[in-house]
Amino acid sequence: MNTLLKINTDNVETISTPLAFQSPHKKNANCPIPLNKPYLPSFSKYTKYLATMYDNVWITNNGPLLKELTVRMEEYLGVKNLLLTSSGTIALQIAYKTLNLTGNVITTPYSFIATSNSLDWLGLELNFADIDNKTFNLCPSKALEAINNQTSAIVPVHVYGNPCNLQALENIATHHSIKLIYDAAHAFNVKVAGRSVMSFGDASIVSFHATKLFHCIEGGAVVFKRKDDLEKAAQMINFGINSSSGDINNSGTNGKMSEAHAAMGLAMLDNIDKILKRRLEHYYLYKTLLSNKVTYPSWHPEATQNAAYFPIVLETEDQCSRVFQHLEKNGIQSRRYFSPSLNEIKHLSTAKQTSCPTSESLAKRTLSLPLFVELSKKEIKYVCSRIRASL
Amino acid sequence: MNTLLKINTDNVETISTPLAFQSPHKKNANCPIPLNKPYLPSFSKYTKYLATMYDNVWITNNGPLLKELTVRMEEYLGVKNLLLTSSGTIALQIAYKTLNLTGNVITTPYSFIATSNSLDWLGLELNFADIDNKTFNLCPSKALEAINNQTSAIVPVHVYGNPCNLQALENIATHHSIKLIYDAAHAFNVKVAGRSVMSFGDASIVSFHATKLFHCIEGGAVVFKRKDDLEKAAQMINFGINSSSGDINNSGTNGKMSEAHAAMGLAMLDNIDKILKRRLEHYYLYKTLLSNKVTYPSWHPEATQNAAYFPIVLETEDQCSRVFQHLEKNGIQSRRYFSPSLNEIKHLSTAKQTSCPTSESLAKRTLSLPLFVELSKKEIKYVCSRIRASL
Repeated sequence: MNTLLKINTDNVETISTPLAFQSPHKKNANCPIPLNKPYLPSFSKYTKYLATMYDNVWITNNGPLLKELTVRMEEYLGVKNLLLTSSGTIALQIAYKTLNLTGNVITTPYSFIATSNSLDWLGLELNFADIDNKTFNLCPSKALEAINNQTSAIVPVHVYGNPCNLQALENIATHHSIKLIYDAAHAFNVKVAGRSVMSFGDASIVSFHATKLFHCIEGGAVVFKRKDDLEKAAQMINFGINSSSGDINNSGTNGKMSEAHAAMGLAMLDNIDKILKRRLEHYYLYKTLLSNKVTYPSWHPEATQNAAYFPIVLETEDQCSRVFQHLEKNGIQSRRYFSPSLNEIKHLSTAKQTSCPTSESLAKRTLSLPLFVELSKKEIKYVCSRIRASL
Repeated sequence: MNTLLKINTDNVETISTPLAFQSPHKKNANCPIPLNKPYLPSFSKYTKYLATMYDNVWITNNGPLLKELTVRMEEYLGVKNLLLTSSGTIALQIAYKTLNLTGNVITTPYSFIATSNSLDWLGLELNFADIDNKTFNLCPSKALEAINNQTSAIVPVHVYGNPCNLQALENIATHHSIKLIYDAAHAFNVKVAGRSVMSFGDASIVSFHATKLFHCIEGGAVVFKRKDDLEKAAQMINFGINSSSGDINNSGTNGKMSEAHAAMGLAMLDNIDKILKRRLEHYYLYKTLLSNKVTYPSWHPEATQNAAYFPIVLETEDQCSRVFQHLEKNGIQSRRYFSPSLNEIKHLSTAKQTSCPTSESLAKRTLSLPLFVELSKKEIKYVCSRIRASL
């Protein structure tokens, strides 16, 4: 055990702290097995792309590296109308503005805060509908119940990368003539019956933040169904300016991805097959070692797995706390992810306080376990042994 | 002349295109003397900081390079309560949200679009007041006239880095109990009677975009008068999360500056004295060579000059067009900056259409001339000879 604890000691400071922003728990500087650790391509590979940026003397504003990453990303994901952005959060805001959202928006309470706060930031009212207790995703029938005459859109999340009930949600949105925007922050590379999960809805966004399996240090992307929406959005990330004519016809913000961030994306994409292979090995090793001990969200039957997270579901909040504490005592970082249920956050509450009992219950008893490329099999075995011991 | 035209030919593609987003004119690929060219510190200096980022395995989320840049920047500017952000536009949004702006906001029509569109993005109503015809800055008496019972703030701009009438604006804001937020995007390093221009108002923001004299590739900062506003804003750029407790008490977005961008900021700061010295030499050479031929905005009598821009004011719109075209024909890029007057942009117009005749007139006859570190004296002399020939 001591050997194991030493493995990552050198990285403790740098691993646990950057992730603290996501944690409902205080960071633990004595945690040799962190929850996450950003994958970094070799320094020489990254600086090779940066040298191109220097040669070009073009460091942001729709530069050559950004254009190259856009082309390669569309090809890799198998999508069209993709726009790279400065973050996944900005990608969400861009999608809302492009599609003219107003009034209230139906969304899931079981997600990272960015899903809700991006709506709140733009003055859109949160209309929470509860999740399905098997998939952890927005429940279509609850979403349908929540629709009123001020509803302009549904923003579901493919939680942990697990695709929503796509057909049911599309039927609802179409029938009620409202927009459907997927927060696919976790769903990089996921396919449903051979088709990219990013190609569903009026728009889908993905996060390329450092903590994600594919990242651009900071970054994100939005994929639109319609080309004219892409064109409007491309102006919106550039202050509303049409870069061909110089005209300003739209609202806008600065949502551009820089060349230094695109360079990281290109270097990551060079390594993506290796990254995914390794993460999937970790994922299935966990599954094997924890079989019959814990439960998991039910994965979409036609979807591929991208091993973005490894969440386990405990029976009670008490059991979840015990496991968390036992892991922490043994130098293993885990996280109640996602917690709290977003409908319980005060500034997001509307006059009509929504109860989402399924989300509230699952948020109290779901733990995400360490999952990153550099994790070793030995460490995973150690984590699993500690979980079994604590149950 | 042929020699001069060749000087920058290799960089034409890479210089003119990145700046196209700001231009009301189409880009000109045959323009050997561009309006601007980003300064780049040596590649070895930049990658030295990036190597630290790699060693830390900490690439965003309040990392060590960001903290170092924050400390050094506060010291360099002589300010407290500075928060680095992903851009100047996001810094403006963060300031508006932190200071709880509502209703309408009095602002200047003579600025880059980001000043107005950042307000519009958050659903705040634009309340344009005209500018002073000498300083080009928001006219305090016009601002006073524009105040109504829905006004929550004034957002003036220190245009070209030239400080506003600080005392008059502060008196108005204090008397009417409304907020005062300065868009100091251009005003890096400007001091008024020995005091940083960033220390005025409830908040001031600055842009660190690639086109600015100091840049972080993409970036910005906001300086708050009060420490509790800084603390609230620090949560807001991190999705609203309190990184110590993990609690979420605020609205928020992703407004973080990455370590790769902070690394550029540190490398720039190492060179800043050299950069400023060189730009000031260019600025005063222009002034000498164009004496009595054109006019300029009147600089604040107690303020330092930072040579952020070199704007010239022509007598008529026709004369301005002639100068612009003559420069273009001779391979020199210039720009009507800032044009159009923002009150004339359709999506920003309110029911009560505001007329701002001073801004509208000056926007049609003010040209910014090439100004960047690598510009040579010979090139400046050439630009000035072309201007004199066209008048």
